[in-house]
Amino acid sequence: MMVKKRILTGDRPTGPLHLGHYVGSLVNRVKLQHEYDEFIIIADVQALTTNFDHPEKLSEDVYNVCLDYLACGIDPNLTTIFIQSHIPEIAELTIYYSMLVPISLLRYNPTIKTEAKQYGYDAKGMTYGFLGYPVSQAADITFCQAHLVPVGADQVPHIELTRKIVRRFNELYRSVLIEPEALVGDIPRLAGLDGNAKMSKSLGNCIYLSDSPEIVTKRVNMAVTDPARIHSKDPGHPEVCNVFAYQKAFNPKFSQELEENCRAGKIGCVPCKKTLIAAVNELLEPLRARRKKYEADKDTINQILIQGTKRAQEEAKKTIALVRDAMKINYFK
Amino acid sequence: MMVKKRILTGDRPTGPLHLGHYVGSLVNRVKLQHEYDEFIIIADVQALTTNFDHPEKLSEDVYNVCLDYLACGIDPNLTTIFIQSHIPEIAELTIYYSMLVPISLLRYNPTIKTEAKQYGYDAKGMTYGFLGYPVSQAADITFCQAHLVPVGADQVPHIELTRKIVRRFNELYRSVLIEPEALVGDIPRLAGLDGNAKMSKSLGNCIYLSDSPEIVTKRVNMAVTDPARIHSKDPGHPEVCNVFAYQKAFNPKFSQELEENCRAGKIGCVPCKKTLIAAVNELLEPLRARRKKYEADKDTINQILIQGTKRAQEEAKKTIALVRDAMKINYFK
Repeated sequence: MMVKKRILTGDRPTGPLHLGHYVGSLVNRVKLQHEYDEFIIIADVQALTTNFDHPEKLSEDVYNVCLDYLACGIDPNLTTIFIQSHIPEIAELTIYYSMLVPISLLRYNPTIKTEAKQYGYDAKGMTYGFLGYPVSQAADITFCQAHLVPVGADQVPHIELTRKIVRRFNELYRSVLIEPEALVGDIPRLAGLDGNAKMSKSLGNCIYLSDSPEIVTKRVNMAVTDPARIHSKDPGHPEVCNVFAYQKAFNPKFSQELEENCRAGKIGCVPCKKTLIAAVNELLEPLRARRKKYEADKDTINQILIQGTKRAQEEAKKTIALVRDAMKINYFK
Repeated sequence: MMVKKRILTGDRPTGPLHLGHYVGSLVNRVKLQHEYDEFIIIADVQALTTNFDHPEKLSEDVYNVCLDYLACGIDPNLTTIFIQSHIPEIAELTIYYSMLVPISLLRYNPTIKTEAKQYGYDAKGMTYGFLGYPVSQAADITFCQAHLVPVGADQVPHIELTRKIVRRFNELYRSVLIEPEALVGDIPRLAGLDGNAKMSKSLGNCIYLSDSPEIVTKRVNMAVTDPARIHSKDPGHPEVCNVFAYQKAFNPKFSQELEENCRAGKIGCVPCKKTLIAAVNELLEPLRARRKKYEADKDTINQILIQGTKRAQEEAKKTIALVRDAMKINYFK
């Protein structure tokens, strides 16, 4: 029997998942779970790097993110969904790896710099934990000896750091860790319906997987389109239109003809949006059905999380034993 | 019944313990174990911050440090001796605390700066793990809810950082952690017998607790005394003489009269050293007897470490449960 390669992927539980997550990774995960042994980490400890001052939301977010996964079609019989904070070995590996990583590799890492800026941390206010999250990511990936990590091109430097840590560990001690590879997908980046790159509840600029048909209608109707198009007969510029980007991502019926009609001013934004609303609702319909089923049975979700976490713990125990042996700190063996 | 307050103390296992450790802390620990619930951490993970590239010595060092403790009179029935790497909760607490500590608090910490210099790390070469060791120390102290930490005055800033972390945690989440206090002792600092502040095997400038009477004689005879005293009848300057410092620390028979005789050039270095050799050997005699007893029974030492670590693990489990509850990340409770 061919053993399936293992994939590690996941999310920080910081709120409900939206269409950006769906097109960017969830739809891919649903596909990959059939080809690979898929592990999905709910990275609650990593969420704490930026949310340490209000962890009370985490409990709800962990539950909801899991519900989102199940709604999308992640099958707990194929995929191991688990909670980061319940795998102490991830913390242990983080500590061991932290001895192998020079500060300079983190401080001058462009992705950390960008994210620090995004969260408003200057060099002074940044916490020790935030600076180290790529080290903790290396532990997330390696604790279960994942072979592959599906990422967008912008995340490749993080995987490179993980690979560097693994190589350093294997060279220094003994070759026990699997060096993971980035499975770089052409991950579409979806902007908010208002054109803002950041999607958030407070901006009301995105469609959550849990949104009702009414909310979907409302959100799309409020979407900003081509600002140069004032009258419906003005020629449109799809390349600057958010709705066009959403059509391409979610509407299989959206055609070359519709695009040409927009450019020629033959179709207005209102009927165009109508086709998008229909398409998104059609897409979300099966998700809503699955969500309804699971929502009625909270205990099942808890059991899925508990069982997934248990399986992850078993893998973690195997890996930490290998790591301790390699480092020769398994004194009582 | 009055519950004893808990004390946390310990060492990095980086080699055998010497007379500097004895007078600086070990003798004090033997006393304190009767008044307090004493926990002694063998900080092997912290040893890795500087020794990550040769961990193969750790196994031997952990064993020998424990043997040194027992030789000194640490009583495993009174004191819990345990191994840091076997308490995963310390790693977990380190990760949680790391979100509460701004980088600047670590980078501009004078003790870290001094130690980094000592190990030859510049700002670039310093590892993430090394920079964070005071955070990991906070976890060492708090995982067992220690009330007191015996330290020298120069270590007070580290305890201050632990107190800061504990206050921040208790304020942010819920007051579950005990804020430890420094038990500042007038800890004598002993220099090497060659006058070098650093004692090391390669310099051959210190007396290990495990040294034989012959080695003690050899080491003291090679000790540098007052360099201005060329002939035995020259007046001596005890204040610059290493042997004098050792006499004061270890020779209860060393008298005002002997000191005056030295100053007057009435006693030479050779007979003075002879009295020190006798005193040190007298001091070490009971340690040698206990060492001999334990050495003959390696399994007992392993059992002491296993039992101590087990007790520490129980305390760790209690604390991490409190911490998870306080942070509201104990999802399945």
